[in-house]
Amino acid sequence: MTHVLMRVQGRLGGSCLRGLSTTSVCAKSASQTKASEPQKEIPGPVTQKLKKEMDKVHQAPAVRFFIDYEKSKGNYIVDVDGNKYLDMFMQISSLPLGYNHPDLIKAAQDPKMISALINRPALGSFPPKDWTERLHKTLIDIRPKGLSGVQTMMCGTCSNENAIKTAFMWYQRKKRGGPPSEEDLMSCMKQLPPGTPSLSVLAFQGAFHGRTMGMLSVTRSKAIHKVDVPAFDWPIANFPRYKYPLNKNVDYNKKQDTACLQEVEKIIGDRKKDKRDVAALIVEPIQAEGGDHHGSPEFFQGLRDLCTTYGIAFIVDEVQTGGGSTGSWWAHDSWKLKSPPDMVTFAKKFLTGGYYYKEDFKMNEPYRIYNTWMGEPSKMLLLEAVVNVIKRDNLLNQAGKVGKELQSYLDSLQGQYPKHLSNARGAGTFSAIDCSSAALRDKIVNNAAQNDLHIGVCGDSSIRFRPALIFEEKHLKEAKEALSDAIASAVQSK
Amino acid sequence: MTHVLMRVQGRLGGSCLRGLSTTSVCAKSASQTKASEPQKEIPGPVTQKLKKEMDKVHQAPAVRFFIDYEKSKGNYIVDVDGNKYLDMFMQISSLPLGYNHPDLIKAAQDPKMISALINRPALGSFPPKDWTERLHKTLIDIRPKGLSGVQTMMCGTCSNENAIKTAFMWYQRKKRGGPPSEEDLMSCMKQLPPGTPSLSVLAFQGAFHGRTMGMLSVTRSKAIHKVDVPAFDWPIANFPRYKYPLNKNVDYNKKQDTACLQEVEKIIGDRKKDKRDVAALIVEPIQAEGGDHHGSPEFFQGLRDLCTTYGIAFIVDEVQTGGGSTGSWWAHDSWKLKSPPDMVTFAKKFLTGGYYYKEDFKMNEPYRIYNTWMGEPSKMLLLEAVVNVIKRDNLLNQAGKVGKELQSYLDSLQGQYPKHLSNARGAGTFSAIDCSSAALRDKIVNNAAQNDLHIGVCGDSSIRFRPALIFEEKHLKEAKEALSDAIASAVQSK
Repeated sequence: MTHVLMRVQGRLGGSCLRGLSTTSVCAKSASQTKASEPQKEIPGPVTQKLKKEMDKVHQAPAVRFFIDYEKSKGNYIVDVDGNKYLDMFMQISSLPLGYNHPDLIKAAQDPKMISALINRPALGSFPPKDWTERLHKTLIDIRPKGLSGVQTMMCGTCSNENAIKTAFMWYQRKKRGGPPSEEDLMSCMKQLPPGTPSLSVLAFQGAFHGRTMGMLSVTRSKAIHKVDVPAFDWPIANFPRYKYPLNKNVDYNKKQDTACLQEVEKIIGDRKKDKRDVAALIVEPIQAEGGDHHGSPEFFQGLRDLCTTYGIAFIVDEVQTGGGSTGSWWAHDSWKLKSPPDMVTFAKKFLTGGYYYKEDFKMNEPYRIYNTWMGEPSKMLLLEAVVNVIKRDNLLNQAGKVGKELQSYLDSLQGQYPKHLSNARGAGTFSAIDCSSAALRDKIVNNAAQNDLHIGVCGDSSIRFRPALIFEEKHLKEAKEALSDAIASAVQSK
Repeated sequence: MTHVLMRVQGRLGGSCLRGLSTTSVCAKSASQTKASEPQKEIPGPVTQKLKKEMDKVHQAPAVRFFIDYEKSKGNYIVDVDGNKYLDMFMQISSLPLGYNHPDLIKAAQDPKMISALINRPALGSFPPKDWTERLHKTLIDIRPKGLSGVQTMMCGTCSNENAIKTAFMWYQRKKRGGPPSEEDLMSCMKQLPPGTPSLSVLAFQGAFHGRTMGMLSVTRSKAIHKVDVPAFDWPIANFPRYKYPLNKNVDYNKKQDTACLQEVEKIIGDRKKDKRDVAALIVEPIQAEGGDHHGSPEFFQGLRDLCTTYGIAFIVDEVQTGGGSTGSWWAHDSWKLKSPPDMVTFAKKFLTGGYYYKEDFKMNEPYRIYNTWMGEPSKMLLLEAVVNVIKRDNLLNQAGKVGKELQSYLDSLQGQYPKHLSNARGAGTFSAIDCSSAALRDKIVNNAAQNDLHIGVCGDSSIRFRPALIFEEKHLKEAKEALSDAIASAVQSK
């Protein structure tokens, strides 16, 4: 997860590496800021001091600033230097209700929280008496259509790991017509077939699914994530790269879908011939870290159909898109699939990780999908409050509504700066716009910080917006002022 | 992590699979219990009912019983059927101070906890202002000798994943003499060398390092963990298998060490010739899940020396052994190494995951060791209380003292039942004994449960003891009564 402000420290051994998005951005190089305000030192002196102290005992190369979380509130984050930013990045898209939400304070003070915190169970074997009730009031209440159950996990990466493991087990069970044989069990201890099969997972160029060695093998967003780490030899297909606005590029974009789907089908066939069957396909509804690349409903319908045809598990990674910012609990709701995904993974704004599964993917054998903690009861108490607030305050609608306004503002910006800005796009507040270069993008983001606006970056030269669900029209008004000024200054100085 | 009681449900599709330790144990088959007490139904009817409800919305095959955590206290766990067990398993060795410890209740009620819970940061970029102070009062205060820094993570598996990734990056940096080149960065996006190297990790037969696909590739404890999951082709060496008592088998055990070290050296050489260099070696001080296999200080000194000689990262996995139950914060303290391990991983009783590193393994480049959460501030508040209690109440000494008594009791048991019990062994309370068969072991463990004693199993036919650090002589007295009776009954009925 990259944020340009963090990338001020983004030097590798002091030298800038080409081919990386890890460029060096310096606050002082930002050309102009609002005339009335003095240039801020970013990061400020207190952060710089704390970072040096931290560096002695804990790795700190990506630390951007130290935060005073007690002073942060709602959509505003306050750093230790007293800078207060309108936060449209929200801890890499992971805080659903901003800072110090009153309903979450209440949930944290609930007497039930004490036992949940200090008696942490091995959930797979010794769940607390009210575990099923907690699930019903949270994850089951908002489960994607057609998916029966949920398996909690600790984070997005291990949710993806376990969904894919489930797919492998399901695929082999289908192939055998039953549970593992004695030969399977003996051979897997030597990592030989048939117990250790040569199966593969199909993923996409630009994808980000996590940073364990397994998940890095299906991740293709940035070289700095992958370099020096051995990987599974799993196939990668192209993901559509649309031209915007969509309504003016219908034919081009349709061709993108067709070509990508054809490639997926070809890879499936090639791997089958090669006896390295594709057992699962994993895909993000919007490639976030990789650059906010969207796919059309038709593209995803096509993937679902191919997976059904070839008996492949269709896994949708909603770690970043799930949780409401697209205007819906699940981004894949908008695809109108005839048959739901086989598994849907989540984390971030859900506070817990996990994955939903279709009944056929339920593991009835113990200790196959298992680890010590497998999630955490305290997260469910907080998540219950989050779900209640989102419903009570109608925040999915709000994200859709203010998101439209944000997108129409981004449209107007690219109209205003056709040489510098393009491809304004989004679903709800989950929005992005491309800059003509990484350097321009970094300038804009840095100028925005000077104007007290905190935004994120992704891909090669995109700005991404990930406000909390409590982001309102009045905050957008503030963001527009800060951003318009930041762009004007950056373009002027170019 | 397997516990025989859980394994009552350990059937695969209704049929028992040979070659698995997943045997079927039924409470009703336990032959005899204390004459004065009626046979308990395990699990009880309330657990059975709750399990059926849970199964509809969340995978539940390994659920043993639902717990009333509010009613559980100290060393005693209370299930929803009102059964109260002396708990010598402690959530798979992961609760340091038992249930509802008064100091942890206080820590959970601390006002600082509220912000820590509800404003969860992306720690790698936006740490809270007091993060370094929290580290000093917890993980740095008890860091292993010679290791300068710590990187927090979410769980044991991701700690191992990231320590190994760090080793790969370190190894390649050494080889190149600097950071990744443009060619490295370009090629890794296609998963080709040199950016994606064919490096390997050396691990041991019987090891358990986690369940992601990367960590399953270095795990060799049980087939049910590994079957149907593709794996990296990484080498495995034998781990010593000692005869006990140690003082009567000195020559045999020494030969074990020598043979294993020779094999390690041969594998390193073979892989080097094959251009699939071993970049890291990962090892548990005591192979826990795999059967509580110990290595001698000389064996580990030999591994350390081999790693130094061949320029390989020496990673010690203290996920289960770390935290005090061996009588020391770190099991590897007893090895008296001339040079410390390069990295030490931990989780479980530390409440957070993470790994310590030598200065040379510190990552100065941003986003290479990184993820959204990277640990959690709320865990550090609880850990601070844990560390304070362990020091104040002298609990490391206590674990050593009561551990010796436990081991001498286990010695006496194997003297009493030479045909049935063997290899009593341990460090502190981290103890185990082997049974002559899995069936006998399962009977003993089940009889113990009938006698209100909750113990764990590991390996093929071992019983493992993992009490909390608050386990005292009076609890041992109770455990002895329950266990002696359980063994007598099991042996009698054999």
